[in-house]
Amino acid sequence: MKIPIDSLRATLHQLLSVNFSPEQSEKITEYLLWADMSGNKTQGIIKMTGIGPLQNIVPEHEVSVLRDTKLSQLIDAGKNPAPLSAQIATEVAISKAKEHGFAIVGVKNTFSSNGAQAFYVEKIAKENLIGIMCSRSPASAAGFGTIDPIFGTNPIGFGFPTNDAPLVFDAATSAMTFYGLVLAKARGEQIPENMAIDHDGNPTTDPTAAMSGALLSFDRSYKGSGFAMVVEMMAGPLIGGAWVDNVSQTEEWGTVIMAIDPELLVDIDEFKANASDLIAKVKSARTAEGVEAVRLPGENGRKLYEAALASGQVEIDDVIAKELGIRND
Amino acid sequence: MKIPIDSLRATLHQLLSVNFSPEQSEKITEYLLWADMSGNKTQGIIKMTGIGPLQNIVPEHEVSVLRDTKLSQLIDAGKNPAPLSAQIATEVAISKAKEHGFAIVGVKNTFSSNGAQAFYVEKIAKENLIGIMCSRSPASAAGFGTIDPIFGTNPIGFGFPTNDAPLVFDAATSAMTFYGLVLAKARGEQIPENMAIDHDGNPTTDPTAAMSGALLSFDRSYKGSGFAMVVEMMAGPLIGGAWVDNVSQTEEWGTVIMAIDPELLVDIDEFKANASDLIAKVKSARTAEGVEAVRLPGENGRKLYEAALASGQVEIDDVIAKELGIRND
Repeated sequence: MKIPIDSLRATLHQLLSVNFSPEQSEKITEYLLWADMSGNKTQGIIKMTGIGPLQNIVPEHEVSVLRDTKLSQLIDAGKNPAPLSAQIATEVAISKAKEHGFAIVGVKNTFSSNGAQAFYVEKIAKENLIGIMCSRSPASAAGFGTIDPIFGTNPIGFGFPTNDAPLVFDAATSAMTFYGLVLAKARGEQIPENMAIDHDGNPTTDPTAAMSGALLSFDRSYKGSGFAMVVEMMAGPLIGGAWVDNVSQTEEWGTVIMAIDPELLVDIDEFKANASDLIAKVKSARTAEGVEAVRLPGENGRKLYEAALASGQVEIDDVIAKELGIRND
Repeated sequence: MKIPIDSLRATLHQLLSVNFSPEQSEKITEYLLWADMSGNKTQGIIKMTGIGPLQNIVPEHEVSVLRDTKLSQLIDAGKNPAPLSAQIATEVAISKAKEHGFAIVGVKNTFSSNGAQAFYVEKIAKENLIGIMCSRSPASAAGFGTIDPIFGTNPIGFGFPTNDAPLVFDAATSAMTFYGLVLAKARGEQIPENMAIDHDGNPTTDPTAAMSGALLSFDRSYKGSGFAMVVEMMAGPLIGGAWVDNVSQTEEWGTVIMAIDPELLVDIDEFKANASDLIAKVKSARTAEGVEAVRLPGENGRKLYEAALASGQVEIDDVIAKELGIRND
């Protein structure tokens, strides 16, 4: 059903306010609304449904700082929801990079995942900084010829300021998301071929078998494993979190966010003009048969977001609406 | 033929000394020897053969500094050989990151390519810093559904310090290197299927057709194009170099090197122990049938390098030896 954005915002805020302060609720709501408005339905308000919904989390403690330097901060999220701690980390990264030219901020001990990296790196890019974000998650993907899962779905995101909207690239390093397995299982569906293996390393299209086996890397090969490993290194060992660990399930999620001021190398106006020119040149390339137009990363999501914003309405799943007590009247 | 490393070093140094200072010749020689000793024959002393060999370059001017801050430096290479300017940039990045925690160094206006990123990011990792390197090259790879080449082969490299040798990941974002096309053409051979398209976008195994067409991205899909674009952004617009440009051929090569001190987030001893533990866990995973052991990025090259070092000898191609005037007696 389509419902007014304002009314969905009010509902989310109200549900979150039981366990979170108004400021915290607002931050979490902002992320969830963005995801649903951008058409990223698996990373949005669905997180407030099912077993262990976001609004029921009782954090261990407030977000606290473990290390702080001019260029960096390491944050203990105290099992707060990741979309909250990642936004706090993003703000810290922006503030430090604006002052000093660069910042790196790590977040450990979060509840669940940040959702889409695009949200955070776009915020950084809107501040005239280059954003880079690595997030590790519980081991679910094989790599380097293993049949055991060794890396998480480990997304990496980049955001670049331009003279128009930021250019954002955000990709899981696994062939599909773990949530895709959960959803297929819940629906009694098979997953596509060449996405996963079972516990013994045989190809499988059964989501349950894949969950006790492993996802493949996004290129089904060696380089994809390498990128997954890079994310694991940046968002595991570098924050003193967890890595290659599908056993203990402690501190399973980890995040590193970097912000780089382009002025370290060129004037910001020049960088943005250059970046826009790069985009224009890519857009003007001849396309393959059947490809209507070059589609840049993040483009579809932004169009959906802007259309939702313009209409004042957002499409949400009827089942989710019901579970959240939302009526369309 | 196998020849003593010392004798090859002396020969290279002598050939380079015509146009370069002893210090410059030493740096270029060090890179080339490393590549051949590591088995990376397409990125080593072969650069001193053929049309336009390295030793014949007459640079426009000495490497000069266009911008310098605590955390950064932008270098005009003055058309010096890229393996020279990239080593200078690597040293600057190490020095600044050791003092301030982070550095980003850009290099524009080089002669040809840096060769393998692994060499430079490993140097950074040996100094207890995380190294990241992006290098753009003339447009040769399609992306995002284009049939025109829009990005270079655009390699990206990462180096991490551990308690043992650094962990290094270095990958072109194209399905194969442009040099692979050159080599196949010279040998009158076809390239493998699913690597390239011709000028009209049809699949081709003819290297000449591929050279006037485009390479595919390493995953033959969307995410690979995204990584290629990230490299293009970092090593083009951010250094005021060139981008998406296979026409003017000016300033066609661009490099950005970053060095990050892990101490910004955790103690270096902790990071290295964590990184080594990550590697050990990956190594202990069950492997697929036919996979003898988990092979980490950079592992084969390092074994070859160490074996060459221990034996004091390096294997080089007879034709190359002859062209360089090397006799095995």
